[in-house]
Amino acid sequence: MSEKRTELSELGEFGLIDKLTKDFKNKNAATIYGIGDDAAVLERDEEHYTLLSTDMMLEGVHFNLMYMPLKHLGYKAVSSNVSDICAMNGTPEHITVSLAVSNRFPQEALEELYEGIAHACEIFNVDLVGGDTTSSVSGLVLNIAIMGKVKKTDVVYRSGAKENDLIVVTGDLGGAYMGLQILEREKEVYKANPNIQPDLDGHDYILQRQMKPEARTDVIAMFSELKVKPTSMIDISDGLASELLHLAKASDVSCQIYDDKLPIDAKTSMTAMEMNVNPNTAGLNGGEDYELLFTISQKDYETIGANPNFTVIGYISHKGEGSHIVDKNGAAIELKAQGWNHFKD
Amino acid sequence: MSEKRTELSELGEFGLIDKLTKDFKNKNAATIYGIGDDAAVLERDEEHYTLLSTDMMLEGVHFNLMYMPLKHLGYKAVSSNVSDICAMNGTPEHITVSLAVSNRFPQEALEELYEGIAHACEIFNVDLVGGDTTSSVSGLVLNIAIMGKVKKTDVVYRSGAKENDLIVVTGDLGGAYMGLQILEREKEVYKANPNIQPDLDGHDYILQRQMKPEARTDVIAMFSELKVKPTSMIDISDGLASELLHLAKASDVSCQIYDDKLPIDAKTSMTAMEMNVNPNTAGLNGGEDYELLFTISQKDYETIGANPNFTVIGYISHKGEGSHIVDKNGAAIELKAQGWNHFKD
Repeated sequence: MSEKRTELSELGEFGLIDKLTKDFKNKNAATIYGIGDDAAVLERDEEHYTLLSTDMMLEGVHFNLMYMPLKHLGYKAVSSNVSDICAMNGTPEHITVSLAVSNRFPQEALEELYEGIAHACEIFNVDLVGGDTTSSVSGLVLNIAIMGKVKKTDVVYRSGAKENDLIVVTGDLGGAYMGLQILEREKEVYKANPNIQPDLDGHDYILQRQMKPEARTDVIAMFSELKVKPTSMIDISDGLASELLHLAKASDVSCQIYDDKLPIDAKTSMTAMEMNVNPNTAGLNGGEDYELLFTISQKDYETIGANPNFTVIGYISHKGEGSHIVDKNGAAIELKAQGWNHFKD
Repeated sequence: MSEKRTELSELGEFGLIDKLTKDFKNKNAATIYGIGDDAAVLERDEEHYTLLSTDMMLEGVHFNLMYMPLKHLGYKAVSSNVSDICAMNGTPEHITVSLAVSNRFPQEALEELYEGIAHACEIFNVDLVGGDTTSSVSGLVLNIAIMGKVKKTDVVYRSGAKENDLIVVTGDLGGAYMGLQILEREKEVYKANPNIQPDLDGHDYILQRQMKPEARTDVIAMFSELKVKPTSMIDISDGLASELLHLAKASDVSCQIYDDKLPIDAKTSMTAMEMNVNPNTAGLNGGEDYELLFTISQKDYETIGANPNFTVIGYISHKGEGSHIVDKNGAAIELKAQGWNHFKD
């Protein structure tokens, strides 16, 4: 080890990845696009590319088994990987599951985890084709790798957004984050007094958004039916603001969005206000909704604008302008990524 | 969680995988072969299959950073994954790397890890095309997923061994295990007295076998040149005995091997004797050599038998016979897997 010591928190996750992978050169003609999008794009056959992506989840970092049932964890892990394939406008096909567990888990607990995985495989039409199972000296670690495919003419990258394109999101935002806040609140109540039952009543929608997020394979099918090909796309895992900035950077443009356009479900808003959180903050910075963020050229506005699955939230502008969120009074605030920095305490 | 509690150690790794995955049904026409071989076999184009495999390594379980430099760890992690692609008679193409680390690692340490990964990518002609980087509350976790390809006519499964086929191994065995024993011994010496320098002199070969194992991509190229297609194949990660039993089970046959045929390097034998280990035990049960174990039909004996890269160690017999290792006096001892059970203490 060299003597210089640079703390990981100085760089953050994305800075670290850039730093570690900058010297890697692709040598393989089959590598069409490597690091830097939701999935790698690899040569397959005359008409198709293969997509490859992976995600690691650790107990105590990404989930807390105190309130996350193992069945839901399995489902969510698959769903979040499927979402990466969707973000390339592709279809998921196969997953591998690597699992590390300590002796404190009985076999029955792992069966629950795999039930959730199996259920997600069923829903998303994916096959579990391999994996690795090993022991852990501490918590549970789950890594999923996913393979999918996409027609060469259909693949969508983060980098294709053009000036004047419209910015669109699917579904609604902030629900998963508010669901997590409710779970955290009830965990604290429980820790203070284990005899008190958790009060989760009336929060079904946001709890489901947190515990059982659904990758938008339906939207990918819709694009095909509607004959719309987004100019760029990314999935919303870390939070809208963070993903907008990724998309802007990859496309060498800026994003302008309107805060009154953010699609926030009434149940998310109510919980946010109840907990003294600005609903728009939940929508902008809350992660794990696994909705899709994409851009379309203006000619597709008629097809997309009226569809209840989609909300146009802004437009793409020249890079020099900087990315902003504009409020009702026209005041523009610079967009900042408040998504997780895994290396900060 | 149900009330029944079955300890993981009762099943072992392979029993657990069987149990957890038994209800998964493949739904996808592109899934040619899923769980149960070194890699999954997936439809690609008219002439080729895609191969997909994954491996997870945890600090404190699979490696100890006290004696495993991060650069070597990176190299070994890639090499062991490449070995899985070799075991299908395929060519590796792409990897993804998932990494979880705690704040105790500075950026410079991770740069060393990625140097090792980059070096292995160079040697094995593989591209790093994606990954995930996150924080860990305890040790370092590394998961690699690997994709490769194989001509449809060339793919080799564990299940193809036929009665009277010859059993062959590449290279030599037990070195990685004896290297680990030396490292463990010196660790104990160091713990007892940190002022004593580790005595690793003269152990270069076995230390390299442990710390920088080389996947046998050269052997796969050789098969192609020699126009030999093994009838079955598996890589030796857990130990020869364990892999022989996997191969026998998958092929529905038995294996008979001769203990005086086991290829043990002189340096491995010397260290084994020095440490009161039977060299054949190291060869039979020591894991992590990442050599290939395969079977050939007798017609290929002339091509393979005289080649110094290969050692014929026995033959395939009827399932009912049971698998044995035969000593010089003709005494047959039943083969038992002594490979790791990750869930036993």
